[in-house]
Amino acid sequence: MLEIEIKSPCDDLEGMERKLLARGAELLGEVAQADLYLSHPCRDFARTDEALRLRQEGDGVTLFYKGPKIDPQSKTREELSVDVPDPAAMKLILERLGFRPVAEVRKVRRNLGLGPVKVSLDRVAGLSGYVELEVQDLPVEEGRSMLLALMKELGLEGMERRSYLELLLEK
Amino acid sequence: MLEIEIKSPCDDLEGMERKLLARGAELLGEVAQADLYLSHPCRDFARTDEALRLRQEGDGVTLFYKGPKIDPQSKTREELSVDVPDPAAMKLILERLGFRPVAEVRKVRRNLGLGPVKVSLDRVAGLSGYVELEVQDLPVEEGRSMLLALMKELGLEGMERRSYLELLLEK
Repeated sequence: MLEIEIKSPCDDLEGMERKLLARGAELLGEVAQADLYLSHPCRDFARTDEALRLRQEGDGVTLFYKGPKIDPQSKTREELSVDVPDPAAMKLILERLGFRPVAEVRKVRRNLGLGPVKVSLDRVAGLSGYVELEVQDLPVEEGRSMLLALMKELGLEGMERRSYLELLLEK
Repeated sequence: MLEIEIKSPCDDLEGMERKLLARGAELLGEVAQADLYLSHPCRDFARTDEALRLRQEGDGVTLFYKGPKIDPQSKTREELSVDVPDPAAMKLILERLGFRPVAEVRKVRRNLGLGPVKVSLDRVAGLSGYVELEVQDLPVEEGRSMLLALMKELGLEGMERRSYLELLLEK
């Protein structure tokens, strides 16, 4: 699954939500997410630009792998995920294999759909607000153009390519 | 979960099954298992005496981690497992993390219960028949004594501490 994504800081998430709804966006719901990032036993994910995390959302836990970014103008990358029915056992197996918890990123995310674009309004603990725009399974150029045009229409300025984990670790 | 286990070669699995049933064992069922063993990105599992495998049994797939053997007189070791609802995605994530398929072990296993002991009669593709006796979550000494006594009663001779994977790779 190729994930084409751009992210911008946004201080007024409520205003942004009103703007999106006025454009016909549909509010899909609000979720609290806690992402536990894991380090690799012999690979420096910061250098290889990969990530492995266990995401808790409601009662469900999902294991995500994100590959290196493949487009300098967006956060486009491979994303793989599997549901984890027994998170405690999965975490223990990963630890036995040498994966170590590095940091946890907590946020409240409001999801909206605007045509093919998934919009996330994120309040990240320890950071400011962010807006993420994402499309999946489109040609990279096409998806990126669509997202950059929407970003401009919404008055979003400044693209942030660093992950929340990187932003938190840099603070 | 501590798995206390011993394994013996057995040429006459049908005779062994009759012997077990005569002692009051209960036949629990027959399953075909295909175990895909994976290598670690930077650790030699053969040297560390660990194993990671994806087991397909019927429609279900389970990820197993087995720790080093901790008892010279049995195959006692830590065993951790999680159900994998999406095996293709799990396999891809493991491959992206540097785990590589090494070999597949296929067998038909008949499971019997005899009191607290789980008995497996295994026909392993490429090897002879084997009987595995297993108890879980008992003190190691107690569990091992129980299994060694049962092994003797059943007329099983020769304990095999190597895994099916090791036996197949040595062939």
